[in-house]
Amino acid sequence: MNILVIGGAGFIGYHLVHDLLDAGHMVTVLGRSEQPTRPLPLGVRYLSGDLSNAAQLKDCLAGIDAVAHLASGTVPATGDKDPIADVNMNLNGTLNLLMAMEACNVKRLLFLSSGGTVYGPPQEVPISVHHPLAPICSYGIVKVAIESYLKLFERNAGLRPIVIRASNPYGSHQGNLGVQGIIGTYLNLASQRRPLEIWGDGSTIRDFIYIKDLTSLCVKSLESDKVGIYNGGSGTGTSVLAIAQLVQDITGNPAPIVYKPHRNLDVPISILDVETTKADFDWKPEIGIKEGILKTWDWLHIA
Amino acid sequence: MNILVIGGAGFIGYHLVHDLLDAGHMVTVLGRSEQPTRPLPLGVRYLSGDLSNAAQLKDCLAGIDAVAHLASGTVPATGDKDPIADVNMNLNGTLNLLMAMEACNVKRLLFLSSGGTVYGPPQEVPISVHHPLAPICSYGIVKVAIESYLKLFERNAGLRPIVIRASNPYGSHQGNLGVQGIIGTYLNLASQRRPLEIWGDGSTIRDFIYIKDLTSLCVKSLESDKVGIYNGGSGTGTSVLAIAQLVQDITGNPAPIVYKPHRNLDVPISILDVETTKADFDWKPEIGIKEGILKTWDWLHIA
Repeated sequence: MNILVIGGAGFIGYHLVHDLLDAGHMVTVLGRSEQPTRPLPLGVRYLSGDLSNAAQLKDCLAGIDAVAHLASGTVPATGDKDPIADVNMNLNGTLNLLMAMEACNVKRLLFLSSGGTVYGPPQEVPISVHHPLAPICSYGIVKVAIESYLKLFERNAGLRPIVIRASNPYGSHQGNLGVQGIIGTYLNLASQRRPLEIWGDGSTIRDFIYIKDLTSLCVKSLESDKVGIYNGGSGTGTSVLAIAQLVQDITGNPAPIVYKPHRNLDVPISILDVETTKADFDWKPEIGIKEGILKTWDWLHIA
Repeated sequence: MNILVIGGAGFIGYHLVHDLLDAGHMVTVLGRSEQPTRPLPLGVRYLSGDLSNAAQLKDCLAGIDAVAHLASGTVPATGDKDPIADVNMNLNGTLNLLMAMEACNVKRLLFLSSGGTVYGPPQEVPISVHHPLAPICSYGIVKVAIESYLKLFERNAGLRPIVIRASNPYGSHQGNLGVQGIIGTYLNLASQRRPLEIWGDGSTIRDFIYIKDLTSLCVKSLESDKVGIYNGGSGTGTSVLAIAQLVQDITGNPAPIVYKPHRNLDVPISILDVETTKADFDWKPEIGIKEGILKTWDWLHIA
């Protein structure tokens, strides 16, 4: 297929682009910067632009068979600071994309949603895709609204959307400046022999998924004929404290762990139920948390 | 209390303003037109403006104790045609309001949501407020997102929101040009001895609430110390065909009923469970469907 990856210059996009090429697809990347922020493999076309420009989106969609939409102008920690900007960039941007796809008759869309925020505080774990949606941050509210619009366009315009509600991906090429992903942030601090910071007491439990496990799921789901909503996680919970201790062990960081106040937007626990995902896509997560952190540490040291 | 009614010049607003005055409150109305589109009672202050102007909103909020937000730039039938406009007017407009209220330290907010669209096709009737939210039109998607942001501002900014998910209000002073409310539309057609149009086979079931029953609930809920989400309906279902026949009977309209194609955005049945609402606000709907249509017909003929 000829696939447009929106946000393809980001962390997840970087890996997805490689996996799509490996699977024999042609890839075009749409990113916001003038030049790609991460090096792209040979043969990948790069287009600079964003979702606010409807006319440009139509140009990007010429000859495209499927779109993978990974772009987000915010992260959970920043959306609440300016919810209108969150809505404009992410919700209205995605609506622009959906209308452009309808105009260009491109039906297949992979949308990366957020398994960590759309459910809110879980009533039970692991969290099934049928769990009620009660997001407690702007980032999650916008993801829920986007998912609803995907269903609307499926109903009214023949869109064939597949939604992956991802848990917390980590691995090589992730940003490590503290806004995205504690594993990258911790490894980066440890490599500088600086203390790891825990927001709260570290009992917060998250579902971490190694990036290659997530992108292999993205490829399989895009190649399938399924539509609908799937969880994309490891199905396993790890506490933030356990992550910090693993990082300390692996890196031999001498600086102690430092505790900071609990952030209001955190839900106490999030583990995704991925049994349906495994069955429907003949997929499973391959890399455990310790192996994944080791691989990420190796990458940091070689890079 | 000193209450700002946003959308107070509309159909529901017209009645709510009267009821608030009767209950001894001071009322300011914010409407989009330069002059109120419906006559306002003496003593009511009218301000012209809309939710896109954050600075003006702060001016409107000076001295205000509570806000009733009834404004909507769309109706279910129009939101899907331009979802970005729907998001900009209604979602971003409400976010502007919430931020202005936070800045002005106004905590109490009544928000009129939509019991007919937020749930989508019901899994069971009557529909409880705990029913999953699966809207199938832009209007409902935006209402769900607004409700989520109200909870976010409750959590992060001390807002005290009360949400009334209204069913289908009808009664005097409703617009009757076919975009809002079939009862007014039907009565208007009947008064011109023109045929009533039914979209589908008329088996669609709706929960119709007489406007004064809805606005009395709005007053009671605003005066209460409750926060949270409540259904505001009659708790009774009536088919569209039954409404058409009631209108034919009451008006003696000689023109026959005409059937048109089913509209995609309609859910087949919607009846709201209002038991919690009744108990929490010592309220109940007083006017049955036949009496309500008669009252509305009387008003049309006197007006």
